[in-house]
Amino acid sequence: MAERNRGYFEAKNILALNLVSSPGSGKTTLLERTICELRERIPIAVIEGDQQTMNDANRIREAGAPVVQVNTGNGCHLDSEMVNRAVRELQPAENSVLMIENVGNLVCPSLFDLGESQRVVIMSVTEGEDKPIKYPNMFRTSQVCIINKTDLLPHLDFDLEKAKEYALQVNHHLRFIELSVKTGEGFDAWTSWLTEQR
Amino acid sequence: MAERNRGYFEAKNILALNLVSSPGSGKTTLLERTICELRERIPIAVIEGDQQTMNDANRIREAGAPVVQVNTGNGCHLDSEMVNRAVRELQPAENSVLMIENVGNLVCPSLFDLGESQRVVIMSVTEGEDKPIKYPNMFRTSQVCIINKTDLLPHLDFDLEKAKEYALQVNHHLRFIELSVKTGEGFDAWTSWLTEQR
Repeated sequence: MAERNRGYFEAKNILALNLVSSPGSGKTTLLERTICELRERIPIAVIEGDQQTMNDANRIREAGAPVVQVNTGNGCHLDSEMVNRAVRELQPAENSVLMIENVGNLVCPSLFDLGESQRVVIMSVTEGEDKPIKYPNMFRTSQVCIINKTDLLPHLDFDLEKAKEYALQVNHHLRFIELSVKTGEGFDAWTSWLTEQR
Repeated sequence: MAERNRGYFEAKNILALNLVSSPGSGKTTLLERTICELRERIPIAVIEGDQQTMNDANRIREAGAPVVQVNTGNGCHLDSEMVNRAVRELQPAENSVLMIENVGNLVCPSLFDLGESQRVVIMSVTEGEDKPIKYPNMFRTSQVCIINKTDLLPHLDFDLEKAKEYALQVNHHLRFIELSVKTGEGFDAWTSWLTEQR
């Protein structure tokens, strides 16, 4: 089913990104800002995964993008069946970007291919440098690593270079984008990457 | 097996705490400080759960407590079998406190009883207020909620009262302890609670 999703995305020239992270790393806020900055230029649709609540879907809708919320209940990850059903409902436009916000969990979602074009792992500087080696599967299966909340660096003992070194130990192809969704610092690198990929 | 563990802990009058949270909420740092502050008064032993690495066990050993590390590989949680094996190896003392640091994951560990006396969920103020309603199982099955990193509150838009309100929506018995492991603010409430429970 993941391959079927991949074929669908290819046919419609949709860039499908699987956004994975710990709870609270700032995925939804990243999407809100991305939609606000790009919506005039790039159509963006969103699939929101959460155990419970419609909160994130409401936030995305307010930001101005079509969205389908998938509640997984006791489930700890999105799977390709859920994404397939959500895509049928969402009907993302040709040449659009489909953002799939996975359940906040650094473990289980790493094992499930959704048919995405690229996997983007978000870590926040409040989480500690060693997350990539403690949750290696997620960092190994991602192509891009966003390091968020850099505005908090002055208040933390977080060694950015060490975090990147650890991440490269498990995946030396990983590309980093450092940014603060809150202040906008570094955000251009992310929107440029998105535009490029598309 | 969870009941068997519970019986073992009861027989030896061991207070067994299952510490659960997102990755990077500060569980290990909380344990380090707790061991340093209490080791003269209370024997503390630790079981460390992680997908990979011995990092946390090394940190706990340096803090001065006996520790067994359990690496779960692809596994997303500790289970009662793992804890049973670790307890045999660790041989915690009578009248001690056994800290079981679960894999950083707000989803799956909520479904697995380890035989613990109490479940302690740690959230950090960097994670956003809505985590309790987005990951309700974990907050519903915990008795205590530590809200960590309060030293960062001046730099965040985090509404502490709202976070507690959300948590009480899913579990109105939940008890809160607000603290900063880094600065020590509020830490007394945690050590008092521990001493009381024991």
